Amino acid sequence: MTLPAGPVKALRLAAALALLGGVVLLEATSPAPGEKPPTGFSEHTWTWEKAFEAKLQERVEAARCREHLRFLTRQPHTAGTPGNFRVSQYILEHFREYGLEAEFAEYDVLLAYPEEVRAEIVAPERVGLAQAEPAHPLDPLTDVSHDPVAHLPWNAYSPDADLDAPLLYANYGRPEDFRRLQEMGLTLEGKIVLLRYFEGYRGGKSYEAEKHGVAGILVYSDPMEDGYFQGEVWPEGPWGPPGHVQRGANVYDFLVPGDPLTPGWASTPGARRIAPEESSILPKIPMVPLSAVDAGEILRRLGGPAVPTGWQGALPFTYHVGDGRLRVHLVNRQRRVRTTIRNVIGKIRGTEFPDQMVLLSNHHDAWVYGAVDPGSGTATMLELAQVLGQLAREGYRPRRTVVFANWDAEEYTLTGSTEWGEQFAEPLRAGAVACLNVDAATSGSDFSVSASPLLRRLIVEATQAVADPQTGQPVYDRWAQAASSPNVRGYATGAAPAAGPPIARLGSGSDYTVFYNHLGIPSLDMLFDGPYGVYHSVYDGFVWMARFGDPEFRYHAAMARLWGVMALRLANADLLPFEPEAYAEALAAYVEELRPQAEPEFFARHLAPVGDEAHKLARAARRTQARLRRWLRNPNAHRTELGRANERLLQLERDFIHPEGLPDRPWFKHLVYAPRPSYRAQVLPGIAEALEKKDMARAAREARRLQQALERARKHLDEIR
Amino acid sequence: MTLPAGPVKALRLAAALALLGGVVLLEATSPAPGEKPPTGFSEHTWTWEKAFEAKLQERVEAARCREHLRFLTRQPHTAGTPGNFRVSQYILEHFREYGLEAEFAEYDVLLAYPEEVRAEIVAPERVGLAQAEPAHPLDPLTDVSHDPVAHLPWNAYSPDADLDAPLLYANYGRPEDFRRLQEMGLTLEGKIVLLRYFEGYRGGKSYEAEKHGVAGILVYSDPMEDGYFQGEVWPEGPWGPPGHVQRGANVYDFLVPGDPLTPGWASTPGARRIAPEESSILPKIPMVPLSAVDAGEILRRLGGPAVPTGWQGALPFTYHVGDGRLRVHLVNRQRRVRTTIRNVIGKIRGTEFPDQMVLLSNHHDAWVYGAVDPGSGTATMLELAQVLGQLAREGYRPRRTVVFANWDAEEYTLTGSTEWGEQFAEPLRAGAVACLNVDAATSGSDFSVSASPLLRRLIVEATQAVADPQTGQPVYDRWAQAASSPNVRGYATGAAPAAGPPIARLGSGSDYTVFYNHLGIPSLDMLFDGPYGVYHSVYDGFVWMARFGDPEFRYHAAMARLWGVMALRLANADLLPFEPEAYAEALAAYVEELRPQAEPEFFARHLAPVGDEAHKLARAARRTQARLRRWLRNPNAHRTELGRANERLLQLERDFIHPEGLPDRPWFKHLVYAPRPSYRAQVLPGIAEALEKKDMARAAREARRLQQALERARKHLDEIR
Repeated sequence: MTLPAGPVKALRLAAALALLGGVVLLEATSPAPGEKPPTGFSEHTWTWEKAFEAKLQERVEAARCREHLRFLTRQPHTAGTPGNFRVSQYILEHFREYGLEAEFAEYDVLLAYPEEVRAEIVAPERVGLAQAEPAHPLDPLTDVSHDPVAHLPWNAYSPDADLDAPLLYANYGRPEDFRRLQEMGLTLEGKIVLLRYFEGYRGGKSYEAEKHGVAGILVYSDPMEDGYFQGEVWPEGPWGPPGHVQRGANVYDFLVPGDPLTPGWASTPGARRIAPEESSILPKIPMVPLSAVDAGEILRRLGGPAVPTGWQGALPFTYHVGDGRLRVHLVNRQRRVRTTIRNVIGKIRGTEFPDQMVLLSNHHDAWVYGAVDPGSGTATMLELAQVLGQLAREGYRPRRTVVFANWDAEEYTLTGSTEWGEQFAEPLRAGAVACLNVDAATSGSDFSVSASPLLRRLIVEATQAVADPQTGQPVYDRWAQAASSPNVRGYATGAAPAAGPPIARLGSGSDYTVFYNHLGIPSLDMLFDGPYGVYHSVYDGFVWMARFGDPEFRYHAAMARLWGVMALRLANADLLPFEPEAYAEALAAYVEELRPQAEPEFFARHLAPVGDEAHKLARAARRTQARLRRWLRNPNAHRTELGRANERLLQLERDFIHPEGLPDRPWFKHLVYAPRPSYRAQVLPGIAEALEKKDMARAAREARRLQQALERARKHLDEIR
Repeated sequence: MTLPAGPVKALRLAAALALLGGVVLLEATSPAPGEKPPTGFSEHTWTWEKAFEAKLQERVEAARCREHLRFLTRQPHTAGTPGNFRVSQYILEHFREYGLEAEFAEYDVLLAYPEEVRAEIVAPERVGLAQAEPAHPLDPLTDVSHDPVAHLPWNAYSPDADLDAPLLYANYGRPEDFRRLQEMGLTLEGKIVLLRYFEGYRGGKSYEAEKHGVAGILVYSDPMEDGYFQGEVWPEGPWGPPGHVQRGANVYDFLVPGDPLTPGWASTPGARRIAPEESSILPKIPMVPLSAVDAGEILRRLGGPAVPTGWQGALPFTYHVGDGRLRVHLVNRQRRVRTTIRNVIGKIRGTEFPDQMVLLSNHHDAWVYGAVDPGSGTATMLELAQVLGQLAREGYRPRRTVVFANWDAEEYTLTGSTEWGEQFAEPLRAGAVACLNVDAATSGSDFSVSASPLLRRLIVEATQAVADPQTGQPVYDRWAQAASSPNVRGYATGAAPAAGPPIARLGSGSDYTVFYNHLGIPSLDMLFDGPYGVYHSVYDGFVWMARFGDPEFRYHAAMARLWGVMALRLANADLLPFEPEAYAEALAAYVEELRPQAEPEFFARHLAPVGDEAHKLARAARRTQARLRRWLRNPNAHRTELGRANERLLQLERDFIHPEGLPDRPWFKHLVYAPRPSYRAQVLPGIAEALEKKDMARAAREARRLQQALERARKHLDEIR
């Protein structure tokens, strides 16, 4: 641990520089007398950490984020294409230039690329569909007519098909939507269904449609969700123009993510691979995405009854569910190929606990240019790597290892992160402190976060230490004031039960999944959110970001600061700044949420004891936290105890991991959170899903497993004292 | 009181006839042994009443409702026009033909007719607006190009104006909408505002706009509320086509309804009249209604910021609030004239209590053809008059007088009913039992009712006695099952606090107002509701009703039965079937609703005692009701007591009337309910409005007034025992 000679002087300089550069540094980062250290820090360490953070915040530059994004969005870079190889190399070279120990982690995985996509109304008249997105001169890069992958509207992994079938409109394609059509006397078997995006992940829609014998899917972006109904459309505003198309994989990664040919193990050279036909996550029916313009051609011609309440979108006529007379011809051909993907892994080795790792996680593959998704996150990570690399050279090195992990093929099935997590499961289980995932970093200015309850206090304190670029006040203040913004990417879930600003539950949809749900590493996923209707379309480019998302790149910079402050606190704290009590409170609340689903007698016998155990855990957590606070006041006297406490705290989330996993998807081993086909988080998934199936024996077993996990966690907390 | 010779036989015949005619008579109307009489009936009277009701239900014919509606909708019949004189005569002649004592009650009142209505966008380019509604060959009567009144889009009473001003879009024109524009830095002074209909009464929108210095109003029907967003549009479905225009008065009758020149007294010959300039209810700024097509011409050209959340409608582009560059030229010229209106009053005199009156209330003037509004109600009333008239001739005469009141000029400012109520205030106060108002009787099949809590039990029992035409089960069952349907006419208010199906609070917007809010006569307002988007447009004609609203006129017939059963129960009960306990419960709940608006100390000191008094009233009501039930078991022994109890019960709602009225609108004398500018009911208006204004002295005074009213009511209930 290196203490700088003159932290106070350095901070004054920082403040002056910040003022000159237009950056408002918060008082929290200046050495006010009597200021309390954040959670996990002794006064002594905090003196150093404070200076470290101040330097970090001072050095971050918006202009460099802009330059990175400019490069990253110069050409389409779908995973496995030459465009993305160029992006991987750019990241690797920069990591190395910044002084990180950096390398590729390569895997051979099954990817897919479009060869032919056609859709046409063939009755009552012929109308061509599946048009390419119109180019606009304002952003010349929107002309991708020359690019064999980028110009087609496609959903990766959709199987080859040549179908001619009647079409029905099925709203969002949720279970209740299909049920509703059946109640109306309509047959889904053998039909093509037209679905709108949102209210669930496209893989979930396909999974549900397959169950109902649907033959094929057209999925489109209704202007109600991401177009003119929400606000100005590109190029006048950030929302999707009627011609935009949302690409994306169609894969059932809520069953098991990662390379479809190596479910549960790493796709290293020589690893066993299953045949694609054996994969449970590859869809059996084709799905093709349409623009609102194309969907409108269908919808305005559909007969049958008018749609039920809640099914109408924002196209200017009454929607109908169809009567079998409108037929569509759908052709989908994709090349599925084993391809090399390249995660870029950079490290700043920890000075004191090199095997304890703080993971910063982002991906670099995009459907087209991916300025928001994932470019804004990648640019932010590169900026943070530069600053932390530079500070390391100046002697400010983290006590624990900071890993910059930039994944490949996230867009397919969280592929790069999953393979890496599976390959390095053992060292990760042993030493990973947390995974801080930033996918899209910036589409606006509304801070939004999903996280393990363990990280609640860290998030609150870090957002109090970083300034919102518009207000100059802490990010926390604005976040606490704002009603949670509608999350256009479909991640958002119910707020955590804790008081304070809403921290959502971790569902799925980004690279934290293997770390959180498979390995039990405390994780979060955060962004600055905003109006954003061009997700996975050709319009999500540099011009969009420079006009709407973050014209001055100040929220990129704010995210680099926030991400960095969180990383440093986790890397440098005397005691890992986790909040077990928040976890216990959340668990008690989740048990209560199950009450309406269970018979009172069952609840009293099997679930109430879990709730009681959660309350016991909360009490143990409070007692332990009090003890730890006392030790922190005199850390030298308690060096051994603190070291042992850290090892226990680091393992705490692992107590909720069960090696056998969930009954229907053993890869998902976390007993408290699991994704649903909808992207959303299912809390207490084992019990909840058994209750849904009315399998009471299983529900009782799952309750017992959870209760044992809670007892384990309590024992571990007790052992700290 | 006449007891028929063979009620059982008559009922068997009824059942047989009903079966043949496809009408399902309910078991409740057949003489099941051990069946309990409805509230207020002794066994003895119920035997006779049951037969009376069975005959009523059996005699009602859907086909005759259809014939009446056919005539009523043959030509436009705005109040004061020759078309409406013809309708008045038709009703009078039929009442007389049916054996009612019938006559006109005429008043000279200020009405208005359009002379010239023009609206045009003049910058950035010229576009004509305020187009007439397009005719459609499916209903040739939709061509009204020859009719000087019907063909213009106009809002009655709008003052003459010739304006050229910049336009802003202000959503629904609610107070919060105007506030929002001001927060955006926009000036309302001198502007024309474009507002959408719904979320409030058009008079309320104008009232609010006037307060903000707005120069003129264009008000339009967005397809989101009553057009293609809701469902199929006319002529394919019941919703409004994009070219439809909602006419209607623009008048501040929430301050005082009725003829603007005689506020508070009857417009009889020789009565004092104020000058129009002195009227507080005539608007100072013009309002002109537009179709969605015309509004779209404006909205698609408006600049400025995109609209806030919740302001976007269903036209296919992003709405903007305006930037002052789009200007509109607006010309409105109306002829305001003193005109004779004609209420048609028909009576069947009561055999035992001729001075006690049950009022059946409906109006006959329409903006154009008014098939739903008010034709469906008028046709239903005519059918009920025929059946009750015929039964009276056969010896089934009601014990109390039944008054068939068919009002004129309701559409202007509840004019006909208000003038009559003011003229006959004394006999009404003395003898009116209740006002059963049916304005639009039928636009679908969903029963919907607003009512005084006193009538709760009557409503429940009557709906249990009449069959829903589609299900054959009691209207009550379907009503209780259904979620309350969206009320497209804007009346709907929060549900009553009582358990059971939702009975809404009486706001304003139809002819019960003078009886309920001015005189304290227990009232209800009911309809069979349904998808209906052509309100006050040329498309609300016979063809609409025959295609969508009630093709077989079975809901007209059901309403005639329901209205008749309610009337007969009120007319024939031994004890008026009121439920004072429901009133007390509602009052206690209303006091609680004020809790969040008041400081805890103020609440404890001034409002909690009112709540306590409500609970006392509930206890008194329960004790009295128990006593009354005992007396009913032996009515002959308690004839005097029952008579005195009826007199007290008849006056009970009057206890909530205060002669001085509400502080800001003394005509409104009911202390528990008053309309708001939004059409909605404000409960405990005196207290609530004082709290809004933070006038605590007034709030305390109003609380005291209410408490005294409750004490009065309790004393009167106690006196019964």
